Parts: sequence; structure tokens; C-alpha cells
Amino acid sequence: MNVVGVSQKRQDSPRKLTGIEKFAGDLRFPGMLFARPVGSPSSHAQIDSIDASAALEIPGVVAVLTADDLPIARDANGNPYKTPIAQGEALWAGQIVALVLAETEAAAEDGALAVVVNDSPLPVVTSLSQAMDFSAPPVRAHGTAGGDDEASMHNADAAAKDESEKETLPPNATGSTHFKRGDVAAGFAAADEIVELAIYSDTVHQGYLEPQACVVNIGPLGDLEVYTSTQASFYCRTRVAETVGYPVHKVKVTPMPVGGGFGGKFVLIEPMVAAAAVAVNRPVHLVYTRMEDFVAGNPAPECEISIKLGGKKDGTITALEVRSVFDSGAIGSAPMEIGMILLGGYYRTDNLDIRGYAVNTHKAGGGAYRAPGAQQGSFAIESAVDELCARLGLDPVDFRIKNCVIEGDMRPNGRPWPEIGLKQALEALREHPAWANRAESQKAGRGVGVAIGGWPGGVEPATAVCRLDADGTFTIVLGSSDLTGGNTAFAQIAAEALDIPLNKVAVTTGDTSAAPFAGGTGGSKITYTVGPAVLKAAEEARQQVLSIASDHLEAAVEDLEIADGVVRVKGVPDASISLKQLASMSMQVAGKYEPVYGKGSTAITDTAPGFAVHLVEAQVDGDTGAVELTRYVAVQDVGFAINPALVDGQIRGAVAQGIGWALYEGLVFDADGQPLNPTFMDYALPKAEYVPYIETVFVEVPSVHGAHGSKGVGEPPAIPGPAAVANAIRSATGARITKLPMTASVVLDALGGPVATAAD
Amino acid sequence: MNVVGVSQKRQDSPRKLTGIEKFAGDLRFPGMLFARPVGSPSSHAQIDSIDASAALEIPGVVAVLTADDLPIARDANGNPYKTPIAQGEALWAGQIVALVLAETEAAAEDGALAVVVNDSPLPVVTSLSQAMDFSAPPVRAHGTAGGDDEASMHNADAAAKDESEKETLPPNATGSTHFKRGDVAAGFAAADEIVELAIYSDTVHQGYLEPQACVVNIGPLGDLEVYTSTQASFYCRTRVAETVGYPVHKVKVTPMPVGGGFGGKFVLIEPMVAAAAVAVNRPVHLVYTRMEDFVAGNPAPECEISIKLGGKKDGTITALEVRSVFDSGAIGSAPMEIGMILLGGYYRTDNLDIRGYAVNTHKAGGGAYRAPGAQQGSFAIESAVDELCARLGLDPVDFRIKNCVIEGDMRPNGRPWPEIGLKQALEALREHPAWANRAESQKAGRGVGVAIGGWPGGVEPATAVCRLDADGTFTIVLGSSDLTGGNTAFAQIAAEALDIPLNKVAVTTGDTSAAPFAGGTGGSKITYTVGPAVLKAAEEARQQVLSIASDHLEAAVEDLEIADGVVRVKGVPDASISLKQLASMSMQVAGKYEPVYGKGSTAITDTAPGFAVHLVEAQVDGDTGAVELTRYVAVQDVGFAINPALVDGQIRGAVAQGIGWALYEGLVFDADGQPLNPTFMDYALPKAEYVPYIETVFVEVPSVHGAHGSKGVGEPPAIPGPAAVANAIRSATGARITKLPMTASVVLDALGGPVATAAD
Repeated sequence: MNVVGVSQKRQDSPRKLTGIEKFAGDLRFPGMLFARPVGSPSSHAQIDSIDASAALEIPGVVAVLTADDLPIARDANGNPYKTPIAQGEALWAGQIVALVLAETEAAAEDGALAVVVNDSPLPVVTSLSQAMDFSAPPVRAHGTAGGDDEASMHNADAAAKDESEKETLPPNATGSTHFKRGDVAAGFAAADEIVELAIYSDTVHQGYLEPQACVVNIGPLGDLEVYTSTQASFYCRTRVAETVGYPVHKVKVTPMPVGGGFGGKFVLIEPMVAAAAVAVNRPVHLVYTRMEDFVAGNPAPECEISIKLGGKKDGTITALEVRSVFDSGAIGSAPMEIGMILLGGYYRTDNLDIRGYAVNTHKAGGGAYRAPGAQQGSFAIESAVDELCARLGLDPVDFRIKNCVIEGDMRPNGRPWPEIGLKQALEALREHPAWANRAESQKAGRGVGVAIGGWPGGVEPATAVCRLDADGTFTIVLGSSDLTGGNTAFAQIAAEALDIPLNKVAVTTGDTSAAPFAGGTGGSKITYTVGPAVLKAAEEARQQVLSIASDHLEAAVEDLEIADGVVRVKGVPDASISLKQLASMSMQVAGKYEPVYGKGSTAITDTAPGFAVHLVEAQVDGDTGAVELTRYVAVQDVGFAINPALVDGQIRGAVAQGIGWALYEGLVFDADGQPLNPTFMDYALPKAEYVPYIETVFVEVPSVHGAHGSKGVGEPPAIPGPAAVANAIRSATGARITKLPMTASVVLDALGGPVATAAD
Repeated sequence: MNVVGVSQKRQDSPRKLTGIEKFAGDLRFPGMLFARPVGSPSSHAQIDSIDASAALEIPGVVAVLTADDLPIARDANGNPYKTPIAQGEALWAGQIVALVLAETEAAAEDGALAVVVNDSPLPVVTSLSQAMDFSAPPVRAHGTAGGDDEASMHNADAAAKDESEKETLPPNATGSTHFKRGDVAAGFAAADEIVELAIYSDTVHQGYLEPQACVVNIGPLGDLEVYTSTQASFYCRTRVAETVGYPVHKVKVTPMPVGGGFGGKFVLIEPMVAAAAVAVNRPVHLVYTRMEDFVAGNPAPECEISIKLGGKKDGTITALEVRSVFDSGAIGSAPMEIGMILLGGYYRTDNLDIRGYAVNTHKAGGGAYRAPGAQQGSFAIESAVDELCARLGLDPVDFRIKNCVIEGDMRPNGRPWPEIGLKQALEALREHPAWANRAESQKAGRGVGVAIGGWPGGVEPATAVCRLDADGTFTIVLGSSDLTGGNTAFAQIAAEALDIPLNKVAVTTGDTSAAPFAGGTGGSKITYTVGPAVLKAAEEARQQVLSIASDHLEAAVEDLEIADGVVRVKGVPDASISLKQLASMSMQVAGKYEPVYGKGSTAITDTAPGFAVHLVEAQVDGDTGAVELTRYVAVQDVGFAINPALVDGQIRGAVAQGIGWALYEGLVFDADGQPLNPTFMDYALPKAEYVPYIETVFVEVPSVHGAHGSKGVGEPPAIPGPAAVANAIRSATGARITKLPMTASVVLDALGGPVATAAD
């Protein structure tokens, strides 16, 4: 293989590196209005009136729209379809209560500041314990838009859930899960050691560079043209269409380049912006400010997990008991179920009892963030396992190798794992000098922690097209957004199949009016599911090319080869036809050959879970609690790296995000539900200087269905970070930290105040 | 059949009837400049300098560009690729010599008026006889852009030409044809009567409502986005790409609604506008004024035909001799060859000798106009046949039925006709009351004339896609432009194949980045060649739908039917699944079915020629020469009318155009090549009041390859009009008129001045 398995530059890099990429927010249409949201001052209130009079006097302000002014259709239950705008009742501080539309961005901003919101505050539910209280006031006093199943679009396990058991839930619970196997009481009775931890994780924002951005233009017949930073154009089309009550054919979604999505950009503002455009019959442009994205986005949810893990001195796990509560926010969803499946699914145990709950609170709707639910669940189990090993004096890597699941082992939901590379990744780490020589780290006063993370991987049917063009090059036409270089990988797959150089393949992500279907770019599924579709399409195109050449050259297909831009008879260099000539013969007047148009479809239902094993070396400043990461090793089963540089990039980016989860990031609210740090001045993303050099190690356990054995690689490396860092801190200081983020003050508290550490 | 064969409203009618369609000229992009051409004052001149200083002082004028400023690449011969802008040498009066670009249309217009062209006149060649002179000065003093083969894109016969004989040609001849069969001298010797006519036809403009219009936007990476009123988006992409020297992937052509094309909108201004956009790195908008379209468009060519036809009293044709000269203009092409093939191809004759020439003159480049070449050639042969019958006292319909070609008869180029419906159409006319009772017309002082017209029909490979959408409806994705309701016909074909209502099918014409290939919408080929592709795609989609339903319902495919939006087991109404559910199962997370995506390709090489037979009843005012058409019957073999109303509309529009050719239209030039009537005030299109009620009669001789037997219907009815009108005038007055248009003064001259006519 010449093209796949080799690092290639991303085809979209030049335009991004030079800053000339055009994003949704850069678009301008004649007559376009700029929208600026007015946020609710209260975290829960009846909106009595919106006084727009002062705003409307500002030159350039065209309209101030509330939900009542927007043509938002109602679902079968009579509820308006979900948008971020309040329907008479503000459900969190900063929820959009009105949109100011103006001829300029400045006028819209001035207008938003001039709008007066008159409201009557209602009781507020902010904490998860409050939300689980049977006597708590309902978060939604009136029936307004509920949650959705977006989180389930990231993994096949959650989508396949089957709720056979029902318990009575508090009024603000939106869902629950209960997985049970064996007898946990007996299991704990048989344990030599029992670890009980109370895990907490803050709300975390996806932190994408480009905020939510969408422009909706109106076609001559009133059709909507939605230009948006979306990971999922077809899903976005359906959501916009149902919101405004249009047939899907009257909505065209053009997926624009995404300046970071990480699960947070399936659909959020598009239905609201579309409704606003319909309301005023003009194009409408909305790009969130950073603060709006913090307060009215769809961040990863806060959660609390109580975990109890029992084990024996021989390294056997005897029982696992868990109770978790995940925050759905006011109108979102929570990836609780998949979090619990993973928490209880990494290790074999005969006895487990896992309960999970999702609850509404007065916060922005919860959303998906790169491996949604896995970070929190994995932080719980990987902290508990590490603590158990520490207390029993067991080697944590050997313990994991002994207990980790392999093909055929059951997940909590009763579904067996397919072939996975977890054990191989653990074995690779065991051999790595960073682990093998960990005694040296410890001598230097540094702790070494290890944790794993796995992701089931999403699957969704997809179609790809491979078309020969007039100049003898090929175009791959897809319906999937390219977030992280996927289109470059697809070009590699096609070039390899067609025996042509990479630069002879262009990849087009079409709009929803003409593109073949693909699901959202999320859940680590695009390379895994679209890749084989591209391969099939390219192979079909190749057969069509060879068939034409066979007829033209009067040679058998099996005697032909494609090389140097021509199809030629093997061993007879003069008997050839160029791809350009061949294109011409199939696309010209009176041409006798059909156009080359290969199609490939997949409907893969077998998932290809990916696992990462991370090692962190850390030292802790005993005076301040500050944690410095001094070494980072990321081992991962990637199936097959179609483009090693891109896989490497995925891992490095994910590790940085994991470090953010571990040490820095968390949206904080006061008791009234007011956000305290919704800016990048106050909300700390890890800067480059806080991310150590990352050593990546690929393990390649090929998947059955992925092109060349590839599998999704985006989400697994975002998972182990928090637990690996916590375990390194435990290794360095003996302190077990169970709250994310593990800021210096949290660590200092856990140490019991300023102390001398081994690193001093 | 429920959906095809039934008149259905055009899907694009509402937006056109209500005036809300958005055409290319309606587009606006940020930073866009309006272009206004500066036309050459001389019909042939060396351009010494362009003084733009005054223009550049006008506020809003940004640039004045000449060919030297445009990045126009050169072809393999070192010549710049063809654009309408002069390359140092002005080749006709009104040729674009500079483009003024300005922030507003008004500034561009003022700027164009302020540009001073300093040139040195060169000798002018305007008439066809001058152009055939061996001592004439060359039309192109310097090697500049030559012709192209656009005319050949309209029919398969011309494209398949094989020039085996070469004669020495005068310097301004661009091509020649010689068809020979038998012994014409012997044929004429055996004739009882010989008709010799000198036919002349003016330059005729396509007369579309929307002038040439194109906007070129520039993407972030410098990619060109061409929005244009084109009949042929893929061909346009190739032409633009080669002109600016880009790979085709860096050019995206979005075909906009075409406000009338009639062959004149394959490609004309797009390469020039693209080069201008590249030159200034800003979007450029050019919409021709009506006058620009007259002087710098690509009209149907002037031509002269000498025809000599011999026949016997028994109705046998003994010989046909023809010499024709067609005008290519300065940089265009002429459909001389196909004109000659048709002229000599309608009737069986053992002896023929046909020579044709195409020549350059100092006029705008010749282009294609609905059945290019056929109007002129048919006017010649159908006038001669009518005259022969009149002189021999033969019934002109019986004569045609006796002599007309049927399947297997040879065309002048030695290619046999496939099955055609000419004879059936003539027989249908013979039975029509307008012909059967023609004596009554004659009693009323009216003449009755008949003429035929045939078109070989184009073929070109094509691909179509049929996609199931989220709401259970289908989308047909195509690369062909919809000029005359083709997309409605395709929706009918798909709906019929899928057993769904017509309103459940949308048809999308995609841009060149994502659409499957189709040729230009011209040559009466789109329904014939894309239709079967749509049918195959829909049938494949249907099979995919049934296959999914079969698995889901656990029933054999052959027991299933599609009806009422569901797939159900025949006779078991409860065993069903809706198309929407089926769409969901094939396009959702963890879906186990591949997306429904049917593909159909065709590479039909057998043409399906179409024939029309027209009858005109006319009366002539002997005092003025004015001709009034009092009855019009249009009989046509349409193969199968997928949408009778649309076929009817095609015929009515074509008849009106034929009446324009016959009586009103002609671009007139003075001896210096200056156009005398380039406005709709002076150039007469037939108004509604001059077009009589048209009776249409369909004959359906099914084609072998067209969907349901359909064949192209657009061009045949545009052909017979001029001869039918001339023959009616002959019938009414005895005068044979051989010059088009047959204006009142031409008729009066032919009558020998004011005379009493039978109609008085």
C-alpha cells in the first residue's frame, strides 16, 4: 500500500493555516440581519413582558423577537420543538428570551442591551441533590420543550437501550438506568478490600475555537438555506424543517467548515435562527459571543457518582456498586446510560449493581462532548481501581491486564464486547519505559498514574460516491462533515483503491439537497462507517474504468492496470488510454460509455470499540497544590492508522482536552444558578505550556468492517486523562482526589493544607 | 400508468409565474463588482489603445480591463482560449474590447461610456460571397481564438462526422462538407421538372427573455464559483477551467434557472467573467443588456443555399444538388453539416450532390439556435419540394408520403435512419380536416402550405441518482439543467416507477462539485438520455426499498407493493411499513439497512430522431404584402408524451419561433458590418397577436431506449415553420419566396408590387 498507512497533509490545512477559510459567520447575504440574543437575567422566572421600545428606537434595529414571534411548530405532544429560546418561562440564567435583529452587528448589540426583561422569579433547582428531591419544585413549571436523543447519536449502545425496569422517580428526573448482575452483597462480603469514592465532575464546555455560528438565507420560494457550523447536516435539516413546519425538501443545509465541534455542534441554534429568518423574511446571521456560548450552549453535564468496588488480594474483583446522577440541564439530555455501561464494562465482575439518573436543573441544556459520559464514568471506575490496587498492594497495570474485558465478555447491559484491543494496549504500556522504569520517576518525587478509557464507537448507514471528472481526476462526494481530516483519509482510501496519486482525488462534502446520506460526524464513526463506503465506491469506479478500458483496448480486465494516469495493458506500455481520454469518452456527445460513477453504501451494525491507555507522570507542589505533568504516554488501539499523522493529531488534541477536564475546566454556578465564570478569562482551558510532550503508541487490532481494519480514534483518547492524572497525584502524594477539576486549591485541600511532598 | 402520460403542472411554474424566481443576475455577493462591456466601434480594426483615464475618474469605477489584463490561458496551438473579448484585434462591430468593473451598475455604465477606443480600421468582410472569395482579406489578421465544436453538441450526426475528402478552400472558410450519391447529371436529365431556388436566411437571434447572465464569486482558496444561466454546467466548468488555467476541481458551476436558452446558453460569457474575477480577485457580475446580447451574443447564422431538385410526373425524385454557405461569424461555428444532412436526408433519392461551406465574417460568432442548421436546410428542401409538386401538379402530402424516408433509408452521410415517425405524421396530417378540407380554405382566398422538419436527436452519457429522504419522499439528483420542464417529467418517471404520488418526488439539479454527470440540455437529448437514467435509478431505489421492507416484514419481495406512502404485503394491509419509517431505519444511528440510493446510468448511442409536419393556412394582403396566418396545425411524432401538456407547450413555443423565422426576425448589417437593428424596437419578435391558435396532434412511434418510448421533442417543431409559411404564400398567391424573413416588403416585391389577391 502506497497511500494509506502513510502520513499525508490534511487537504484543508492550507486555507486554515493561512486564515483564509470562510466559516459560517463570514457569510454575508443581501438584506441580511445580524441577530444578538437577550439573555434571561433570572435562572428561573415567568417572563411577564419584554420591553423592546428603547431597542427599536436604535437606528438599524429592525425587530425584537420573542418565542411568540417565531413560527415554531409543535410536536405530537403539543410542545414547541426544541430551540434555545425561552417559551414564556426562563429556565436558566442566560437562556435566550429575545433576539434583536439589526442591520449591523453593532446595532444588534446596542439593541440587546436596551431590551428590558420584566419577569417574576420562580424557585430555582441547581444542585443534583436538589434535583433528585421528591419535593423539589418542577424545573419546568409549564410544559415546554423537552430533551432529545442527541447523546444517543454518539454510540450504538445507548441507542439500543431497552428499559425493562421502571422505578418511581422524582419529578425532575428525566431518565434512569439500572444494570444488575449477580449478588453484590455477597461480592462485597467476599472482598478483602472495599473502596468507596464519591466522584464529582463539573459542567465542562467543549471549548471549540469557533462559537456556534449559523446563517439562514431565504430562497425565492421561501426555501431555507442553512449555512452552519454543523457536524450533522442531514440531522440539522430534519430538525430545522420540523421546527418551522416545512417539508425537508424546503430546507437545504450546507455544512460549513467547523472550527471545532467535539459533539457540541450537531444542532443548537439553527432551528431558532431559521424561525427568525422566516419571521422577518430576511436572511439572519447569528454567531454566539464566547459568553453566550458558555451560558446558552450545550456543555458536558455536571455529575455525581458514588462508587463502591470490592476486590481480593489475588486481584479478583468481587463486586461493583454505583449510583450516579447526571445533569440534563433544563432542556438537554445526559449521556448517563453510556457512562454507566462503560463504568461497569471495562472489567470482568460477576456482581454489579449500577443505577443512574438524569435530572433537569436550571442550567443550559446538557450536550455531547467527545466521548460523552465516558469521561465521568471512567474517572469513577479508574480512580476506584487504582485505589483498590494501592490498598491491596497490587500492580495496577497487571491488575488491569488480569481483569480487563476481551471479546465475548459482557457489558452491564448484557451485550458482549466484540474483538477489542484493550488488553493489547495495556500490554504495550507495560513494556513502555515510562511504566517499566517508573521507580525512577518515583525516586524523583513524581507520581505515575495509569488509566484506561474506551468507547463503543458509533455506527450509522452511509453512502459515498466516486465520480470520474473531465480531467481524469476523481471526486468523492459525501454527506458527512469533515472535522478532523476525515476527507483526507477518504481521499487516501480512494487513491489507494484506484492506484492513483492522492492529489488526483478531491473530496466534496455536498449540501443536503444533493449529497448521499451520512450520519453526523460524531461518535468516532465517520472513518469507520463512511470509509468502507468510500472504498466500495472507489472499487466500483475502478471496475467501471477498467471495463471501459477493456472494451477500448480490446484486452481483458484482468490484464489491465492503472498507473501514471493511464489504464494500460500490463507489459504492453503502448496499449493504454489516459484517464482523461476515458473521461471524455464517457462524458461527451455520442459517447458510448456510461459516466464513471461508483457508489458504495454501508450499514455496519457491528461496532468497533476503541481503547486508550494513558500514563501520566506528575509532580505536586505541596505548598500550592499545583500539579505539573512531566510525562504523558498515550497508547491506543487504532485498528489501522490510515493516516498516522492525523491519528496522532487526534490523540494529542484529546489528551490536551483530558488535561483540561483533569486540572482546569469547570463551569461554576452560585446557589441561584448564576454562572460565575463564563469567559475565557475565568474558565481555564489548558494552555500549551500546561500540556507536556505526548508520546503516542499505536496498537493495531484491525476491525472487521473498517477500511483496511481502521476504527474510530477520536473519542477514546479524550477519556483516560482525569483518572490518569488523579492516579498520578495519588502516586505522588497518597491523596485520592475525587473532584474534577483538580485545581490547585482542590489538591491543597486534599493534602490537608500546605505540606511537604516528595517533589519538594 | 398513473403519473406518466398525464399532463402535470411544471414544478417550477409557481416561482416563475409569481416573479420570485432568482436568476443569476439577481445574485449579490459582498465586494461584488458590476461589469459593463465596451464594444468595438469598428467591425474590423487593430486596437491601438484603450484610454481608460476618464472612466477611472468616475466614482465607483474600479478597473477597466482589456484582454491583456485577463489571465486567459492558451491552448496547445498557442492561441488564447475563446472568450468574447477582443485580443488586440476587433473582429466585429460591438465585440467586447474592454470590461469596466465598478461598485454599482450605474458607475459601470458611465465608465463604459467614458472609455475611448483608439483603433486602426482593417478591411471588412461581411457578405457570404465576399467570404467565399479566394482573394478576400483574412477575417482574422492575427491568429486569435478560433471556433469550437459547440454546434456538434446538439446532434449525434454532426459529432460523428468523418471528413474523407478535402478541397482547396478560400482563406476564410472554416470547414466544408461534400455528400455525394449516384449521378446527379443523369438524374436531372431524367427529370420532367427541375426546380432551382436561391435560398437566403438572415442571422436570427435566439430571442430569450433573459440575456446572457453570469456571476463569478471567489472562494477562500481562490476557487471559482460560477453562477450562470447555462444549459450545460459540466461543459461550462471545463471551458472556464481551461480558460483561467485551473484544474476543474477549482471551478464549481452552479446552473441557475435559465430564462430561455434555445441553444444560445451553453457557454459564452462565463470564461471572460471568470478571468475578470481572477484579475481583480473580487466577485464579478455581468448581465448583458439587450443590445449587447444582439451584438455580442451567438446567434443563428446567416446562410445562402442554392438548391436544384428534379422530379418526374409520377412523383419520383430524380436528383438533388445543393451548394450552401453558412456564416460562422468571426469566432463561432456554423451548423452547416447537420443542415446539409437533413436537407438531403428527408427524402429518398438515388442521386445527390451536396456541398456546404462555413465561413468567417466580421460578425459575432455564430451559435446554436434550437435545431441549428435544420431551419435553413429544411426551408430549402421543403420550398423546393413544394415548388416541384406545384409545377408537376402533384399533391404535396401524397408526394411526401411516397418519398419520405423510413427506417433503413440512408442519410447523405451514409448512415441509415433508425425507426422514425415521419410517414405516420404525414399520414396523420393527410386525415386532418385542415388538409382534407383545404379546398374550403382556398375558396376563402387562403393558401395552405405544408412542410416537414426532422431532427436526429442528440445522445450523451448521463447518470441520475434517486435518494430516499428522511420524511419518506424521494430526491432525484441530476447534473442537467431544466429548461423546459424536464425535471417535472423526471419526477413523473420516478413517481411512476416507485408507485408514489408525484408530489413525493423532488428533483435537484446539483452543482458540478457533487452532481452526477449529464450533458448539456440541448439537442433534444435530455429527456431521451437522462430519462432512462432516472428510470433505472428509481427502479434501483425501489428494489432497495422492497429489499429492506422484505427483511423487516419477513415477506418475499414479490409479495410487496408500494402504495399510500407505505410498503405493504399484498392483501395483508396490516403488514406494512411506511416509507418514512423505512427511511429512518436506513438513516439513523445503529440502523441496519443501507441508505436507499439508486443510481442509473445510460450511454445510449442509438438516436431517436423526431419529425414534425406543419400545416399553415395564410392569407396575403396584396396591397401591403402582409401575411396573416389563419390556421396552424402541428403534427409531431413525440415517441411517447410523458407529460402531454409540456410537450404541447414545447410545440407551441417552437411554432411561434418558426413564425418569427418565417415572417419577422433577422439581424441586418450594413456593408461595413454595422448592425442596424440590435434592439427589440427594431428586431421584430412575433407578438402574441401574430401567432394563430395552434392545433397540436401527437403521433407516438415509441423510441427503443427512451423512458416509456419517449424521444426528444424540443427541436423538430421549430423547423418546418418558414417553409410551411412560404408554401402557404405560394398556395395563396403563386409567388415563391426564398428569402427569410418574409416581411411584408419582401412579399410585396415577390408579388411584383401591390396586386389583387384572392383574399381581397
